[in-house]
Amino acid sequence: MGQDQEHQDDSMVMIETNLDDMSGEWMGYVMDRLFETGAKDAFYTPIYMKKNRPAQKLSVLAKEQDLATILDLLFKETTTLGVRYYPVTCHRLERQFLKVRLPLGEVSVKVGRRDGVVVQIAPEYEECAMIARNSGIPLKQVFNQVQQAFRNQYPEWEVNKKA
Amino acid sequence: MGQDQEHQDDSMVMIETNLDDMSGEWMGYVMDRLFETGAKDAFYTPIYMKKNRPAQKLSVLAKEQDLATILDLLFKETTTLGVRYYPVTCHRLERQFLKVRLPLGEVSVKVGRRDGVVVQIAPEYEECAMIARNSGIPLKQVFNQVQQAFRNQYPEWEVNKKA
Amino acid sequence: MGQDQEHQDDSMVMIETNLDDMSGEWMGYVMDRLFETGAKDAFYTPIYMKKNRPAQKLSVLAKEQDLATILDLLFKETTTLGVRYYPVTCHRLERQFLKVRLPLGEVSVKVGRRDGVVVQIAPEYEECAMIARNSGIPLKQVFNQVQQAFRNQYPEWEVNKKA
Amino acid sequence: MGQDQEHQDDSMVMIETNLDDMSGEWMGYVMDRLFETGAKDAFYTPIYMKKNRPAQKLSVLAKEQDLATILDLLFKETTTLGVRYYPVTCHRLERQFLKVRLPLGEVSVKVGRRDGVVVQIAPEYEECAMIARNSGIPLKQVFNQVQQAFRNQYPEWEVNKKA
Amino acid sequence: MGQDQEHQDDSMVMIETNLDDMSGEWMGYVMDRLFETGAKDAFYTPIYMKKNRPAQKLSVLAKEQDLATILDLLFKETTTLGVRYYPVTCHRLERQFLKVRLPLGEVSVKVGRRDGVVVQIAPEYEECAMIARNSGIPLKQVFNQVQQAFRNQYPEWEVNKKA
Amino acid sequence: MGQDQEHQDDSMVMIETNLDDMSGEWMGYVMDRLFETGAKDAFYTPIYMKKNRPAQKLSVLAKEQDLATILDLLFKETTTLGVRYYPVTCHRLERQFLKVRLPLGEVSVKVGRRDGVVVQIAPEYEECAMIARNSGIPLKQVFNQVQQAFRNQYPEWEVNKKA
Ligand code: NI
Ligand code: NI
Ligand code: NI
Ligand code: NI
Ligand code: NI
Ligand code: NI
Ligand code: NI
Ligand code: NI
Ligand code: NI
Ligand code: NI
Ligand code: NI
Ligand code: NI
Repeated sequence: MGQDQEHQDDSMVMIETNLDDMSGEWMGYVMDRLFETGAKDAFYTPIYMKKNRPAQKLSVLAKEQDLATILDLLFKETTTLGVRYYPVTCHRLERQFLKVRLPLGEVSVKVGRRDGVVVQIAPEYEECAMIARNSGIPLKQVFNQVQQAFRNQYPEWEVNKKA
Repeated sequence: MGQDQEHQDDSMVMIETNLDDMSGEWMGYVMDRLFETGAKDAFYTPIYMKKNRPAQKLSVLAKEQDLATILDLLFKETTTLGVRYYPVTCHRLERQFLKVRLPLGEVSVKVGRRDGVVVQIAPEYEECAMIARNSGIPLKQVFNQVQQAFRNQYPEWEVNKKA
Repeated sequence: MGQDQEHQDDSMVMIETNLDDMSGEWMGYVMDRLFETGAKDAFYTPIYMKKNRPAQKLSVLAKEQDLATILDLLFKETTTLGVRYYPVTCHRLERQFLKVRLPLGEVSVKVGRRDGVVVQIAPEYEECAMIARNSGIPLKQVFNQVQQAFRNQYPEWEVNKKA
Repeated sequence: MGQDQEHQDDSMVMIETNLDDMSGEWMGYVMDRLFETGAKDAFYTPIYMKKNRPAQKLSVLAKEQDLATILDLLFKETTTLGVRYYPVTCHRLERQFLKVRLPLGEVSVKVGRRDGVVVQIAPEYEECAMIARNSGIPLKQVFNQVQQAFRNQYPEWEVNKKA
Repeated sequence: MGQDQEHQDDSMVMIETNLDDMSGEWMGYVMDRLFETGAKDAFYTPIYMKKNRPAQKLSVLAKEQDLATILDLLFKETTTLGVRYYPVTCHRLERQFLKVRLPLGEVSVKVGRRDGVVVQIAPEYEECAMIARNSGIPLKQVFNQVQQAFRNQYPEWEVNKKA
Repeated sequence: MGQDQEHQDDSMVMIETNLDDMSGEWMGYVMDRLFETGAKDAFYTPIYMKKNRPAQKLSVLAKEQDLATILDLLFKETTTLGVRYYPVTCHRLERQFLKVRLPLGEVSVKVGRRDGVVVQIAPEYEECAMIARNSGIPLKQVFNQVQQAFRNQYPEWEVNKKA
């Protein structure tokens, strides 16, 4: 059962670059590579640039110490000639993983606490998706069953309550 | 002074293709070429495709009789291997162009009427932009001056009134 | 308790217009007016038009018999000089509204059935939002409580089961 | 008649979080709650995240002193497990509200000045919308009437001039 | 070596539904399931719905004969209570797959012809991505090498020429 | 033959403003004016603001020393009453322009190097577009011919190699 205290990360950077001369196919590949290379998050935002160009802004959240590695990857795998970045502070909740038993299998639930109060209860997507896929039960129903089972097995973990 | 009655065009097609393996630079070029080739309108919509690909849907509004010409251009200038289309009906307002005199020059104003009632009064962008650029006056102010001058010179053309 | 059989509406139209010379403020107003005027749905899609213009496509789903009324509104309240439309078929689920009792009040739940099988269980947003707002309980928690209470009060209505 | 000098706010923060596991219904609710809780601005940006997830980035502009309150709200009302933020400087124009009399009622107009020069003249949306709604006059026409009446009643307030 | 003549498919449907009460996580899952269930294409478009809701339009291109199957999936795996659709015609190029030998392995190239003229030469993404991943060579470089090798091995297949 | 060393610019600012009461036509004009006024980059991002308003975020990348000039332009040419900004660091590749001879004319190619290793080879869009337009050859084919000719004329400049 993992645990992670609520804390602030001050040495994070948001790295951004605008891509107007690169295929969408390659963008999907870059996203995978970024996560493998240590990015904490990566996402695309549709933008419009000069000369009527629909484009994408690629944003990468990373630790400051990983900046050079991420830049290496971006220059290597995208078509950009320049990248910009700025420091950001990340505030992360206390996280705890609890196991929930379902007839169809066991699922992890991520519980998030702010100042000791439960605020998030999030079934793990990959585990729910595997159950849904194997059983043919709709994913949305698997999520609901996990949340219901969670409330039964862990009645003390209730949103909006100290736990 | 041009004029054009309110009418419906029944033989129009909306042509669409999803582009996930093409540069934004090329998309800007294609848009120009489409208008030169007879497209009535052309625009891009940001979409998300499979395999984490940010992409663009290109939409082209054209006359049915121009379908083959537009397809030729799309296959030649984009990277698509397939295009789809469906018939649409266009309802267009009666249009009339009136000249407005400003100290800085003359500007055309497009007036749109629905069942004889004025509903749109639209200064021509290109002419306003040229005045703004040459005079250094903000474009928004040029538009406002044109609309004010229009109301003075053509008091009978009032939005929401028969004219 | 409302009820509505699963059915197909064949006489629907999708009405669209591209807006590149109109303020976002006015677009918010138009959306409200569309629903009041009989639109079945209305939404905006960000698009990119010629001359580097970020714009919005306004889409309105309506009954064919309401087409003229919707066109009147669009020409009156937007800046468009032309509108396009095409017929669409709507397939709508059987809908039934059930009341759920919570300590904090009663909430309607919309149940959707496909071929007699329950596929959707959707708490009414406005009622949940009012409870959340009055009680200070997070909206997400209100939704979860409603879904849990629903399962207790209506055990026979289960997703993926005939009911 | 309110007034507010042109100034810079240095102790502002931009707070952001990516939402890929939360309903759009709840996002609308969060936006309302953010403004009630002291956010200076709040908006959503469509983004694409890993695993083919269309998502939204929620951005909140707030005073540094309100950071903790906004974080409380975000953790309570969204599904996020982590939030990021960075300092921004806001440059705000001198603002003055003037009343304009129309046959249909009185409307406030916000005038913005940069270095003493008028650059913005903005009719208040809510007041215009109420007049439009009550009178049936198109909103765009109400805005135009307000701007015309403003120029008649306050000829000294002209865009691009010291006033 | 596959081959497929240029042709038109007239019995296609575009199926659409607006999703404002469903998680992005689930949307990623639905996309995978749609392709497995026979959809010819599926994509998401960011839209804005009433009540300040950022949402997604899901679009599915399918054969008319697969309509019921796709509707089953959409009602089961999304939260929608209603789906709309309309017929579209698809024009597809003649396709031929050719093998290109690289030092790093063999890659398929899809050639598209319009009226017998080569218009597209597209290296297969999955094969290029595997080579890039295994070799550490940037994906963009793999694509370029494939295109160069293609021109050497198949000089008769030149864009803009009959072949 | 221009050259520019790989370097970091630390005194850059990202300037942003949200536009919900301004026409798309005017936004296209502002973009042109921004580049003429010294902006290093400028782009629009579709966002959703309060009161159901689809809007655009305008982002301008500029040197810190140009901040006041850019603010002047933004307040003059947009409808905004407030603008925000924050410092960013830009990491730019070493750039070198090389001339490539084609039967149809000469084209510049921008080569980007990271730590002395070639990572980008980018034909100049404007020059390729002019050749495409004059010759009727598809733009994509012109780009491919330039890249092929580049490899023949400059075999020592190879992606992923020191050069
Ligand atoms: Ni940490
Ligand atoms: Ni470029
Ligand atoms: Ni016509
Ligand atoms: Ni493809
Ligand atoms: Ni019906
Ligand atoms: Ni126009
Ligand atoms: Ni202030
Ligand atoms: Ni997650
Ligand atoms: Ni076919
Ligand atoms: Ni709903
Ligand atoms: Ni520099
Ligand atoms: Ni405003």
